[in-house]
Amino acid sequence: MRILTAIDSFKGSMTSKEANKVVKETLTDHDVVSFTVADGGEGTVQAFVEAEGGDYIKRPITNVNGKTVLGTWGFVKESQTAVIEVAEAAGIIQADKTTFHPRHHTSFGVGEQISQALDYGAKTIILGLGGSATVDGGIGMMMALGVEFLDEANQALPILPVDLSQVKKMQTEGLDSRVKDVNWLIASDVTNPLLGRNGATHVFGPQKGFSQEELIEQERAMRQFSQVVKDTLHVSCADMPGAGAAGGIGFSCYSFFGATFQSGLSLLSERGKLKEKLRAVDLVITGEGKFDSQSLAGKVPIGISRLAKEQGIPTVVFAGKIEQGLTSLKEENILVTLPIVNEPMTLETAIVNGPSLLKEALERFQQILRLTI
Amino acid sequence: MRILTAIDSFKGSMTSKEANKVVKETLTDHDVVSFTVADGGEGTVQAFVEAEGGDYIKRPITNVNGKTVLGTWGFVKESQTAVIEVAEAAGIIQADKTTFHPRHHTSFGVGEQISQALDYGAKTIILGLGGSATVDGGIGMMMALGVEFLDEANQALPILPVDLSQVKKMQTEGLDSRVKDVNWLIASDVTNPLLGRNGATHVFGPQKGFSQEELIEQERAMRQFSQVVKDTLHVSCADMPGAGAAGGIGFSCYSFFGATFQSGLSLLSERGKLKEKLRAVDLVITGEGKFDSQSLAGKVPIGISRLAKEQGIPTVVFAGKIEQGLTSLKEENILVTLPIVNEPMTLETAIVNGPSLLKEALERFQQILRLTI
Repeated sequence: MRILTAIDSFKGSMTSKEANKVVKETLTDHDVVSFTVADGGEGTVQAFVEAEGGDYIKRPITNVNGKTVLGTWGFVKESQTAVIEVAEAAGIIQADKTTFHPRHHTSFGVGEQISQALDYGAKTIILGLGGSATVDGGIGMMMALGVEFLDEANQALPILPVDLSQVKKMQTEGLDSRVKDVNWLIASDVTNPLLGRNGATHVFGPQKGFSQEELIEQERAMRQFSQVVKDTLHVSCADMPGAGAAGGIGFSCYSFFGATFQSGLSLLSERGKLKEKLRAVDLVITGEGKFDSQSLAGKVPIGISRLAKEQGIPTVVFAGKIEQGLTSLKEENILVTLPIVNEPMTLETAIVNGPSLLKEALERFQQILRLTI
Repeated sequence: MRILTAIDSFKGSMTSKEANKVVKETLTDHDVVSFTVADGGEGTVQAFVEAEGGDYIKRPITNVNGKTVLGTWGFVKESQTAVIEVAEAAGIIQADKTTFHPRHHTSFGVGEQISQALDYGAKTIILGLGGSATVDGGIGMMMALGVEFLDEANQALPILPVDLSQVKKMQTEGLDSRVKDVNWLIASDVTNPLLGRNGATHVFGPQKGFSQEELIEQERAMRQFSQVVKDTLHVSCADMPGAGAAGGIGFSCYSFFGATFQSGLSLLSERGKLKEKLRAVDLVITGEGKFDSQSLAGKVPIGISRLAKEQGIPTVVFAGKIEQGLTSLKEENILVTLPIVNEPMTLETAIVNGPSLLKEALERFQQILRLTI
């Protein structure tokens, strides 16, 4: 058979690219093509670089904690497209665990990477929003691009610590003018607005380190900040879907860049010509670490299976953990879900042995297919 | 496809019959015939009764701890064959956990069931040796059939407590004469001799409750007992393969009955006409709780797969726990091994949810087969 593999990362165990490699190396009876996937979070740069044939650019940036590190983004020379992910430049994975709190986390590095991309002559910038450790409304990113946020005494705020409640005014004269000539594409699966019960603070704040008491203050500060942006730029973006992505970076992308938002997978499949690739295969393999009812709300495997459905191609899902009862989902074009664990074990063991467990599950799958050949 | 299912019990989770029922109820695309299996241990009576179409006989017996309980054995009227298992009449599962020690465990109930079978007119007695809690050399069983074991003072030993070191003589005048007219078939996978490093005491004694110090004394007592039997009956059976089965009940079966030993599965497949049934199918499903390198030494699934191999029929193994690397075994005619766990979990959870996990693994298997139709 001709098979396309588009497995999402198994968080903490395998990247999408690594998982697809296991599929290609194991299913030797079949012709396998790989499609690296991502949802806007970690792995987004890799996915677009793989899909469009770009290069990795490594340059120093100010990381989420304010330290200088080597950061990576992607550049596709042919289409003059840069790919940047906040998971890399302001990511929860990069953040120091001992001081873990949004007040110590800036999105400054994202702005620096944008600036680097502009230096490369990028005409399109794809920005993946997901996996950020920040709740700074994107002020760090905008500072790196020349915007000044001023306090009551007209003093420019420092990069760190982050305190949105201090923002009373802003000056955009210094904003890098090149951002206006760029086609901004935001890859994100978050559709939350900036403010309110479903906003960046209340939904994502707790997992980023805010206490329940701090959430109230932070929400007030975020509201005040968004008002300053609105009053200055005369655009109202706080309610737009995705404005709450990556701790409010989404809001700044709407307000300052006039960016277009799209689901990570949808943007990736468009630019990577996934539909055309699907037309050439008989079966699609996808998967992720944990496959459950939440997955049906639109995570990568369901996104892939729906695209495959349009071409009438059945989909098989591999996962480390599969919710009881979900052995197949006819209405979602999922022929079968296959767990990779081979015996009772802890989650840690499953994560550590992810690649070999996936390999063995694939060997089993291939063996069953041989039964009828 | 036409499928024969012959899954061994998943110890503590499902009997062979229950597991096969799950297969038959789940693989609705296919014609499934069930073959209940057992290795001489727990489930042996059920397996033979299923295979030969017999009845279950329930009669009071003295259980392993000396208490009166209702015991079950099987009778096939047509062939006048009785099936008895020591796992039922003197089993480790039945033994009181608070007083767990071989000195408190008798095989008397096995003899009582033999006696009951003789009352039913049994001409063939199949005795399954496996899963016993006793290390009494079978003296309990023989007492129930009329043999007296005497101490130094010519006093007949009591049923309990068991102390083989007291056996100085024996009197066989009272032995039920009907045992001589019976065709004795012993179903057992144990091939250990009665004595020595590989004998009943040293190999199985520790798991039955003997301390390291007690093993030495017990071995001496067992040797002395076997000498008494040898001197009285003028047969030497201690070294015969299986004499060490079921705490030495094997030795008594050889010595007093002149029994024939056979592997449980081999006897069962012969009497249940398994070969003929295999000729009528395209695929064999087998399995057990734990499938690992030990399974290759001749447990039920390998036995089944070898029988299927003779007919050129591929075998699929389902198991709760599968050793890493064993995804298929071409040389053993095992096309694929399929674990039933669907996520990281404890052994306890896997055992409790065995039937539903097996069902979902079968649904997955059937779905993959649909891919190839």
